[in-house]
Amino acid sequence: MTAPTTDVFFDFLCPYAWRGIELAAVLRGQGHAFRLRHFSLVQGNHEENGGKEGVVWWLTDQPLGEGSPYQRNSLAAFLAAHAAAQQGEELHWAFTLALFRAVHEHKKTLDEAAIAEAAQIAGLNLEAFAAARADEAGLRASLRADLAEAAEIGVFGTPTFVLPDGSAAYYRFENLTRDPETALVWWNLYGEVLRSSAGIATIKRAKNRPAQKA
Amino acid sequence: MTAPTTDVFFDFLCPYAWRGIELAAVLRGQGHAFRLRHFSLVQGNHEENGGKEGVVWWLTDQPLGEGSPYQRNSLAAFLAAHAAAQQGEELHWAFTLALFRAVHEHKKTLDEAAIAEAAQIAGLNLEAFAAARADEAGLRASLRADLAEAAEIGVFGTPTFVLPDGSAAYYRFENLTRDPETALVWWNLYGEVLRSSAGIATIKRAKNRPAQKA
Repeated sequence: MTAPTTDVFFDFLCPYAWRGIELAAVLRGQGHAFRLRHFSLVQGNHEENGGKEGVVWWLTDQPLGEGSPYQRNSLAAFLAAHAAAQQGEELHWAFTLALFRAVHEHKKTLDEAAIAEAAQIAGLNLEAFAAARADEAGLRASLRADLAEAAEIGVFGTPTFVLPDGSAAYYRFENLTRDPETALVWWNLYGEVLRSSAGIATIKRAKNRPAQKA
Repeated sequence: MTAPTTDVFFDFLCPYAWRGIELAAVLRGQGHAFRLRHFSLVQGNHEENGGKEGVVWWLTDQPLGEGSPYQRNSLAAFLAAHAAAQQGEELHWAFTLALFRAVHEHKKTLDEAAIAEAAQIAGLNLEAFAAARADEAGLRASLRADLAEAAEIGVFGTPTFVLPDGSAAYYRFENLTRDPETALVWWNLYGEVLRSSAGIATIKRAKNRPAQKA
């Protein structure tokens, strides 16, 4: 029997997504099942995508090396992650965590050097990783499937968790935990909000009264 | 001894604020203290107020009877509520609830007829109410104090609750309760989110996976 799976949509650019992925990683250690999915903030915030016709500008239609540093770096990182995913779920998680930590914990740029180092730290088969990365069209198709599903769900920020029951919400929090008990409390509170009979749509801090960092 | 007071910022135009005020009203019956405060959605969403310089366009600077129906009706309702408040806290609450119910439960227009009927249902001294409403400058000053504090806090939607500890967040939910036990559960869950050690900034549903109405 497999546990019901929660999809977590993220962008490597986002420090809140990093904390969300760390949370999910801790929960995986307690038997919870999460699937790594990609949502592009650059695409989501692109001026051409504001209209009623949905997504017009896709990150996956952009050449590597074009656009803003955010665009270039996030596209390269997403494609690399889809290449890493071909080495199995555990190595996909290890690569994702290593790349997130490089950028948001160790404050490195999300570039080729960070990708190479994350691959090494994760323990990927580097030859197979390089070979997988060479199939750019295949990786783009795989990324496009994530981005299309995110658009269908109406993801607008990361991390967004999609629970097995189909409910989905952006969950933004300021603090990092790698403690199993704390992670479970934070996760259960999120689930309680989504399942509440109140039908909670939004809880969001007033602009000048931000959440407190620990 | 008085209970620590939570401020609730609302606009009569907003159905979510209505549910929030009903929730607060039920909790008042259990000894919780809430203070009625006004935030103007028309002002908050006004195109002149998008910049860094804060509020440029104030609802309180607009003549009665000018602008969109939303602007006209909400200004008149706010001023009427400040007049009702002069008859004491309980009658202020009764008037606020009656006016909210007229608009959002009985689907009436937020106009002079609705205000007059709410005053009657609430049991206001109608002569004193009329006299208080005639002091338009005083009511505008009183409303302005609410709007200025909302701007200082960074309120952006209603209902927004400001807890005694200073934390403040928009709390949007789809369902109505007048059941004391349910109200307490919904309220405690909101408080738990604001007090969580995660430092929760936002929980917000994905656009195409809305919260379920009961």
